[in-house]
Amino acid sequence: MENKITLAHGNGGRLMHELIEHLALKFSNKILDEMADAAEFTVGNSKIAFSTDSYVVNPLFFPGSDIGKLAVFGTVNDIAMKGAKPLYISLGLIIEEGLETSILLEISDSIKNAAKKAKVQVITGDVKVVEKGACDKIFINTSGIGIISYASKIDAKAREGDEIIINGPIAEHGLAVLNAREKLGFISNIKSDCINLNFDVERTLKASRHIHVLRDPTRGGVATVLHEIAHFSNLGIEIDEKLIPVRPRVARFCDILGFDPLYIANEGKFLCFVRRNDACRVRSAMGKDARIIGKVVRSHAKEVHLKTILGPMRILPELESDQLPRIC
Amino acid sequence: MENKITLAHGNGGRLMHELIEHLALKFSNKILDEMADAAEFTVGNSKIAFSTDSYVVNPLFFPGSDIGKLAVFGTVNDIAMKGAKPLYISLGLIIEEGLETSILLEISDSIKNAAKKAKVQVITGDVKVVEKGACDKIFINTSGIGIISYASKIDAKAREGDEIIINGPIAEHGLAVLNAREKLGFISNIKSDCINLNFDVERTLKASRHIHVLRDPTRGGVATVLHEIAHFSNLGIEIDEKLIPVRPRVARFCDILGFDPLYIANEGKFLCFVRRNDACRVRSAMGKDARIIGKVVRSHAKEVHLKTILGPMRILPELESDQLPRIC
Repeated sequence: MENKITLAHGNGGRLMHELIEHLALKFSNKILDEMADAAEFTVGNSKIAFSTDSYVVNPLFFPGSDIGKLAVFGTVNDIAMKGAKPLYISLGLIIEEGLETSILLEISDSIKNAAKKAKVQVITGDVKVVEKGACDKIFINTSGIGIISYASKIDAKAREGDEIIINGPIAEHGLAVLNAREKLGFISNIKSDCINLNFDVERTLKASRHIHVLRDPTRGGVATVLHEIAHFSNLGIEIDEKLIPVRPRVARFCDILGFDPLYIANEGKFLCFVRRNDACRVRSAMGKDARIIGKVVRSHAKEVHLKTILGPMRILPELESDQLPRIC
Repeated sequence: MENKITLAHGNGGRLMHELIEHLALKFSNKILDEMADAAEFTVGNSKIAFSTDSYVVNPLFFPGSDIGKLAVFGTVNDIAMKGAKPLYISLGLIIEEGLETSILLEISDSIKNAAKKAKVQVITGDVKVVEKGACDKIFINTSGIGIISYASKIDAKAREGDEIIINGPIAEHGLAVLNAREKLGFISNIKSDCINLNFDVERTLKASRHIHVLRDPTRGGVATVLHEIAHFSNLGIEIDEKLIPVRPRVARFCDILGFDPLYIANEGKFLCFVRRNDACRVRSAMGKDARIIGKVVRSHAKEVHLKTILGPMRILPELESDQLPRIC
């Protein structure tokens, strides 16, 4: 590993995977080794999902969302990706001395409203305050707990022949945060897609008993999540560029800045890997904007291949340096 | 509330209580309103305890402990204070760009060893990296899950006549951190008392079915926790200064610096409120250093009175300004 931690260790890409694998090996146990967005354990006859995420997004408020809403929906979604019904969250605040109380209260209201929308309760919390300069305004950690009642096993492993479906157009969250932070001066209507996915997932799960993987492509975007799944499943993935939903204004913004939307974070999208026969039914359940974007193949294991708009296939590389730090 | 957040909003004292009460009112629900160190909820026939804490201690390493060990034992202890058996923890890291990887790995080893000692598993985690200057080296959040099998209800309410027992000498953690941070130049052997209390609590609970409150006096020290319990129970508390165990070197250190050990953080102590008849048995179960330090009375509700060494009673005030920031 590198001698020092860099921003790329937090971007969802190769260095982050190396770091996390190193740590995961240290703490290795049966539950952690599944490497899912949420852990799964059993109490009595109940299967419980448990997940944690820290939110360090900058700026705190941006078109379509804010750190509070993000902290609730982000964790709600990680729980939902285990096929679980999110019920409870914890709230850990680290606040910089001097933060205006009105900002804290605005964020708290946003947390409250988001929790109401997702039908989860904040049941425990913690507040720490550090000296001015020791953190950037406010960081939020939420951990979540949900109940798994879905019969099939949702894990991190896809099966050969699975179709890959996404529930709508990509790359909006990351660009909305970037635009708000860097004051790029683009006249842009791009808003974060930040939303709770738990009810969409519930509906989706009812459409098929052969859903193998659910994942929300947040940090590192769709490309990064596909890489993780290809790697963990020891199978290949093929996606078709022209099938991937990208709004025209997002495509233009990416063109100008030289970004690839496949690597930009989403906060209201999920990918579903499902048996081919059930794909159309599942796509309908996922919503009107859902699209089948590719499939799982036996060849080129651990690699993601992209059929480009111009025709030829190319390997979609793993994310290296950090395109966009602190977008969640 | 004040216009801006100050360090005192995180010190365990009056301003922090005001802030937390304000937030708690916003998120109000039956579980949160219990205001315990850990929340309690039911799944199937099982009662589960759930708790969260962020750790921002400075420096990262200090005599007797470090941020990693603290992050595991702190959360393990919060779970234990509900009379629950801690089983699982989550690990959320917020790392400053440029942190030496060797420091991260040393902290990780400490987490691993602490988890092993407390017999809990790290089952889910998250890593965020922020730019240099956006946080101070590393902050850690842990959330914990435990199973409540103890028959009696441990809550935040004491009963009139309860005896108050502490398991050993106080104020060592806060002073150890302060001494390491400020390089005060005292030749001092004061080490943090940071330890997991889950097995001690298990043994203690077996000694009586009439334990009403368990609390670990961390931020704000023994005085602050007693205030919280007096307030929440709507009863008075009387403690006797000469019964409170303080090691001579700790007393000297406090004398020189003008600190009151009753307000200094501990990380390996717990207070037990138990029916008078069972107090001696419980004290024995709590360990050889355990001492009865006071009792719960009907008079002067919500106030803590201290019988001073010189004789007269005085009111022990609620903590106001911050004596020691970032000690956990």
